[in-house]
Amino acid sequence: MPTIVVDVMPKAELLDPQGKAVQNALHRLGVEDFDSVRIGKRFELTVEGAVDDALLEKVREIADDVLSNAVIEDVVGIEVVE
Amino acid sequence: MPTIVVDVMPKAELLDPQGKAVQNALHRLGVEDFDSVRIGKRFELTVEGAVDDALLEKVREIADDVLSNAVIEDVVGIEVVE
Repeated sequence: MPTIVVDVMPKAELLDPQGKAVQNALHRLGVEDFDSVRIGKRFELTVEGAVDDALLEKVREIADDVLSNAVIEDVVGIEVVE
Repeated sequence: MPTIVVDVMPKAELLDPQGKAVQNALHRLGVEDFDSVRIGKRFELTVEGAVDDALLEKVREIADDVLSNAVIEDVVGIEVVE
């Protein structure tokens, strides 16, 4: 069954306190390799049948209108797997 | 600056109420194309300098131990971008 993956990340200019908390936790564990940690969302939409251009266009609309909040988030990727 | 992306999804046998809520919202909007919607997390770890095997091994450990909860989540992907 094909799966369409939509990746949504907090906008670069926002602080992302959740990512900051993970970064601080890593520092406390002695892991200093990462300059920044940011946390977004990964949506997996499974589809019965084929994925065509019309469906992908619909996914792009849904990604912008339903899956993400354009004020604070960017849709950074839409890809079909399987 | 290289970015290591870690994808974490709720385990397949779990219900994922957040994904279900989005699926129901799409149904209410008349979108019936998707069999299921599941929502996981996307971590972006930025690194200054090169990504080598030792660092990727460390990321794999962190993904299992810090970024995900093995009881309810699976690490579904680790990849280097840029």
